[in-house]
Amino acid sequence: MKFGGTSVADLDRIRAVADRVRAQVEAGAQVAVVVSAMSGTTNRLVGYCESLSPLYDPREYDAVVATGEQVTSGLLAIALQNLGVAARSWQGWQVPIRTDEAHGKARIDSIAGDALIASMQAGEVPVIAGFQGVAPSGRITTLGRGGSDTSAVAIAAAVKADRCDIYTDVDGIYTTDPRIVPKARKLERITYEEMLELASVGAKVLQTRSVELAMKEHVRVQVLSSFVDQAPAADGRLPGSLVVDEDEIVEQELVTGIAYSRDEAKISMRRIPDRPGIAAAIFGPLSENNINVDMIVQSTGEDASTNMTFTTSKTDLPRAVAVLESLRDDIQYGELATDDAVTKISVVGVGMRSHAGVASTMFRTLSERGINIQVISTSEIKVSVLIASEYTELAVRALHTAYGLDAA
Amino acid sequence: MKFGGTSVADLDRIRAVADRVRAQVEAGAQVAVVVSAMSGTTNRLVGYCESLSPLYDPREYDAVVATGEQVTSGLLAIALQNLGVAARSWQGWQVPIRTDEAHGKARIDSIAGDALIASMQAGEVPVIAGFQGVAPSGRITTLGRGGSDTSAVAIAAAVKADRCDIYTDVDGIYTTDPRIVPKARKLERITYEEMLELASVGAKVLQTRSVELAMKEHVRVQVLSSFVDQAPAADGRLPGSLVVDEDEIVEQELVTGIAYSRDEAKISMRRIPDRPGIAAAIFGPLSENNINVDMIVQSTGEDASTNMTFTTSKTDLPRAVAVLESLRDDIQYGELATDDAVTKISVVGVGMRSHAGVASTMFRTLSERGINIQVISTSEIKVSVLIASEYTELAVRALHTAYGLDAA
Repeated sequence: MKFGGTSVADLDRIRAVADRVRAQVEAGAQVAVVVSAMSGTTNRLVGYCESLSPLYDPREYDAVVATGEQVTSGLLAIALQNLGVAARSWQGWQVPIRTDEAHGKARIDSIAGDALIASMQAGEVPVIAGFQGVAPSGRITTLGRGGSDTSAVAIAAAVKADRCDIYTDVDGIYTTDPRIVPKARKLERITYEEMLELASVGAKVLQTRSVELAMKEHVRVQVLSSFVDQAPAADGRLPGSLVVDEDEIVEQELVTGIAYSRDEAKISMRRIPDRPGIAAAIFGPLSENNINVDMIVQSTGEDASTNMTFTTSKTDLPRAVAVLESLRDDIQYGELATDDAVTKISVVGVGMRSHAGVASTMFRTLSERGINIQVISTSEIKVSVLIASEYTELAVRALHTAYGLDAA
Repeated sequence: MKFGGTSVADLDRIRAVADRVRAQVEAGAQVAVVVSAMSGTTNRLVGYCESLSPLYDPREYDAVVATGEQVTSGLLAIALQNLGVAARSWQGWQVPIRTDEAHGKARIDSIAGDALIASMQAGEVPVIAGFQGVAPSGRITTLGRGGSDTSAVAIAAAVKADRCDIYTDVDGIYTTDPRIVPKARKLERITYEEMLELASVGAKVLQTRSVELAMKEHVRVQVLSSFVDQAPAADGRLPGSLVVDEDEIVEQELVTGIAYSRDEAKISMRRIPDRPGIAAAIFGPLSENNINVDMIVQSTGEDASTNMTFTTSKTDLPRAVAVLESLRDDIQYGELATDDAVTKISVVGVGMRSHAGVASTMFRTLSERGINIQVISTSEIKVSVLIASEYTELAVRALHTAYGLDAA
């Protein structure tokens, strides 16, 4: 069971978390708990470090920031004991959760599950500080923002857990954003691949790295709310959404969900001399400047020239333009145009691997609503299009209906 | 160099501490620093634990509370690096500072000084989280309130430091409380024994345990202010007060200081049947109830009865009375009287070992002012008397003058 920062925001919430853990223990489960820092704590500590030195030592940053989770782990252990549940806190270095030396954004190398398993077998609930580990040097590391999800999945793998339940402020994964489509349905099951595509295009429920790790380690992840009381259904169905291997989903839907991302900006370069190596000449310098480019379309222009259209995040747009302007003499391109009033809409589903027609349904549906498609990109389980932002809600609703996702 | 909670209360204070450390490094010293939690932090964390469970697990309390010093150690390391001083933080378990298993009030068993010495020899300032250590079980321990002084002295011993400088909110040890006697003088040197007597009777500058440890390990402790800028004198004299072995003080004063404690209460039991074992029958039950008894006087009363007068702290008085009332049937004593408007005045000095007349000077001085002495107790280097509280200031001033302690 993993509880994020808002789930342990204050002492009352920590008591409520202890109640949830006790319910699982009383139902006969062996439980290990992973906790984040109380919400607000990490930001306060990061603020201290930044205020003392803009270029702070990430090793010291880790020593400071890791205290947030340490506090929560001790407090939850106390709250559990107060309910009569045997419990003890574990810091990353005590487990140990071994990471690399990349302070501030470390990756987990290995977790020794033995002590945690022994603790659970002795009837105790280990309460593990998430987000942290210990480097080969013996110094404290942190996994980077949202790293507690990754901690939870890695620990679930290390103790060979049946399931990793991640409590968040939503009660599951939906077919699309319920704020836009009231008829959005909660998904009972979703594959890791679909979850990755949905997360990377805007449905930020689980940290991407944690889903990748769950996929690699075959950890079944359940997403559920720590604010709604969700009892398992009479038929044993779980209350949240379960993220699993594809073969655990018997009947595949063609399309699982509709995602959108407004954090997009479009860059168009026109009348580029069409010669070999021109793509490398453009995207090489962008990559060197840590600018991620997403959708790319090349089209033939007039004469022997070509046009290039691609997208970046809104944040990266000014830097991307600066890089491209510096290339103007080299590349000798014509016009450079940008547009940040664009949204990427994605239709995701592992079922589309074996079914044609998903893309054409998308194009037809948008066309019927008079929505112009500016850029298209596809992957094995996803079709994405770039449209003008003003059509975002209309497009998401129309596609949700078109793929039969609306709740009854 | 050890800095307490008020010395690192906020980021500005931490920057000021970094400046002080840099000055020592630039003067050519190899420095290790011990820090407390930012003031207020420990109380907040203790409050969390108490709120979740009045009978919290002290092991979890330690995990929670030790984060306060961890944060300061990382922040000060960052502040030092920002000034160009190489520095790194050390947690108790990293040094390691090995303690026993007495969570919440652990005692230091041993400190491995090697890593800290190597760090200093490599030109780095180790910044060590005070107040904490690691138990043989591998769990975090804390040393109890004020334990950072003890950490500092123990680390000074482990790295064979020339001196342990303890920065506080006073600028040294005075012959008496300057708020009562404006002519109080700052002592350049004072022995461990005198410091212990002065501390235990009210001059709470250093934690008693830290002075005991300094005496045992022969660590020279300098007390100085982190708020006043004190440069060493031209003749090399140190700016604060130095607590040292007796043989480091060439010319012994007869009396070093006058201390007082208002936290006293007097209990008088009259007409106690005078039979063997009566003292044990009274003080045994008090001790079993954790009530500390200080000064004791027994005097013969009428007939075959005796009177017993003794002192406790004001806090313990109600419990002491309850215990004594419960003994009334057993002991068959007559009257039980209490008085909490009393003060203990102590004259302290290692010089009085070899000089008679210190006590008689005290009695004569008080008598000349019309101050009645209610109880007397003496030790090798101390004479204490109990007087009515209203005479406290008068008595302290008169004695300060009588022993020639007034500043010129």
